[in-house]
Amino acid sequence: MAKRFPVEFYAERILAHDRLGLSRAITLVESTLPSDRELAHQVMQQILPFAGNSVRIGITGVPGVGKSTFIETFGNYVTNTLGKKLAVLAIDPTSQKTGGSILGDKTRMETLAGNPMAYIRPSPAGKSLGGVTRSTRESIMLCEAAGFEVIFVETVGVGQSETAVNEMVDFFLLLMLAGAGDELQGIKKGIMEMADAVVITKADGQNLQKARVARAEFQSALHLFPRSASGWIPKVSISSALENTGIPEIWKTIEAYLETVRNGSFFEQKRQNQNLHWLHETIRQTLLDRFFAKPEVLKTLPELEQKVLHGEVSAFAAAEEILKLN
Amino acid sequence: MAKRFPVEFYAERILAHDRLGLSRAITLVESTLPSDRELAHQVMQQILPFAGNSVRIGITGVPGVGKSTFIETFGNYVTNTLGKKLAVLAIDPTSQKTGGSILGDKTRMETLAGNPMAYIRPSPAGKSLGGVTRSTRESIMLCEAAGFEVIFVETVGVGQSETAVNEMVDFFLLLMLAGAGDELQGIKKGIMEMADAVVITKADGQNLQKARVARAEFQSALHLFPRSASGWIPKVSISSALENTGIPEIWKTIEAYLETVRNGSFFEQKRQNQNLHWLHETIRQTLLDRFFAKPEVLKTLPELEQKVLHGEVSAFAAAEEILKLN
Repeated sequence: MAKRFPVEFYAERILAHDRLGLSRAITLVESTLPSDRELAHQVMQQILPFAGNSVRIGITGVPGVGKSTFIETFGNYVTNTLGKKLAVLAIDPTSQKTGGSILGDKTRMETLAGNPMAYIRPSPAGKSLGGVTRSTRESIMLCEAAGFEVIFVETVGVGQSETAVNEMVDFFLLLMLAGAGDELQGIKKGIMEMADAVVITKADGQNLQKARVARAEFQSALHLFPRSASGWIPKVSISSALENTGIPEIWKTIEAYLETVRNGSFFEQKRQNQNLHWLHETIRQTLLDRFFAKPEVLKTLPELEQKVLHGEVSAFAAAEEILKLN
Repeated sequence: MAKRFPVEFYAERILAHDRLGLSRAITLVESTLPSDRELAHQVMQQILPFAGNSVRIGITGVPGVGKSTFIETFGNYVTNTLGKKLAVLAIDPTSQKTGGSILGDKTRMETLAGNPMAYIRPSPAGKSLGGVTRSTRESIMLCEAAGFEVIFVETVGVGQSETAVNEMVDFFLLLMLAGAGDELQGIKKGIMEMADAVVITKADGQNLQKARVARAEFQSALHLFPRSASGWIPKVSISSALENTGIPEIWKTIEAYLETVRNGSFFEQKRQNQNLHWLHETIRQTLLDRFFAKPEVLKTLPELEQKVLHGEVSAFAAAEEILKLN
């Protein structure tokens, strides 16, 4: 077990913008040990009044879209040109399968990793989606209390984590490749409709013309989508990390969005709704986890699933049978 | 309380394709009384081997899209031209608010209601979404056992019921108006991406040209969407219930879809996955309902919600506090 410190230690170091203290606090909130959870709650309670002062940006896209390169280029723009402190958090529950992490590759984001204005933190491999999302959300608040002004939350765009990320960020950015069609199959249904902006990546060289066509196509497609409650219409832009183009435009889009949603109560209301979402979601998930971990349930459920699959019993009758075990 | 009969009565009447027997069985599965649930399970168990032989079609669209007229025209085509027995089930949990039902209006679907090949059944008003979806799904199976070959499941397109319906039908049809833009705001995000086909309604008179433009726009937009696991690309068509145009094309689309998904194991697999979905969903929903109905939870939760909203406590700490009540 990692070394643990008194609650004041974590809170003081974080509020002093100490990176080592921040890292230790994130390690603490990532733990599922009951004693660590208790300590983590106390730390969170102390930093709570200092959290919230950042722009939280979700960034997703399938492997191959150039996500690391984009985040590096965009990240360096945020720190170097805008002069803002940036934290990058990565969620990758799919790494459970391989035991590796999307950020495990040490060659990823080399210049950003060495940037004193940036802080990069991958999610630990081998954790459940529920665990990763809770610790990511608490990590966002810890980073904010530690003085970070922009937070990127990165996901791989193929799993269920995007819906969770959408519930913890202010702005959701979807990276896509030009030449729409087959490559979309990797993207989960529903992700497109969550996007506040779409960026067509690798818009350089022979790809540039294709990227322009894709931009027009996506812009008119997004126009057909149900409008967000904020009234914001998602923007589509093109970018080349290689030629360093399109990056300031993306930040301008985010600023325009923030102006739209802050011009009224939407911004605050969205964050409040997200807080309520996480309250309810945590209750729900914990209740279900407890039930499905019961030995009798673990034994009976697979048998009933087979009976349902073979049409021997209806799904509802099977459900009532297993619910007797609660 | 409505009159109840022995389990054999319901099963025999249904298998004899008796409409009154079917109606009584649906009333039974709509009940939440424990004694009724027990009887309903026995009935479902008896008819289970005779269920499944229908094409289940979800139909949704916001108020004003002309849904009733479309269902009436399409329904009469299914019965009169195709010679198939049709059951129309309506889900409307929003009617909770008004106490009325979307099918409560007696003037709706007059010719279909008088059609001996058609059976129309609205969902009872004032029930929870969970209750409505369970009874709708059981009603589908009862209708199939009673010899109905095509089932329409109708929803209003503005709530959460569409996701539930998508999990109980083979084919999901979205009705839209031409003149894309503002009218889309009524549609919930995510519904577009569930559609296997989009029908632009009211494509007549001065609207016809607009409908044709909308068709082209939607077709190219849907092309950008993530592909379904079945490989099916959603089709867009136009229709006028007034001029009775476009109706056979919609049926042809459904037939083409069925050919695609039956050419392989997708059709059966989707239905099996739906069965497992309902098993798990029922377990989940029941566990949560039981917890949130506890008097201590009913008392404590609103207080904690306020604290979370005012930033006095984190969502996760609040969740752990209330979970001690389990």
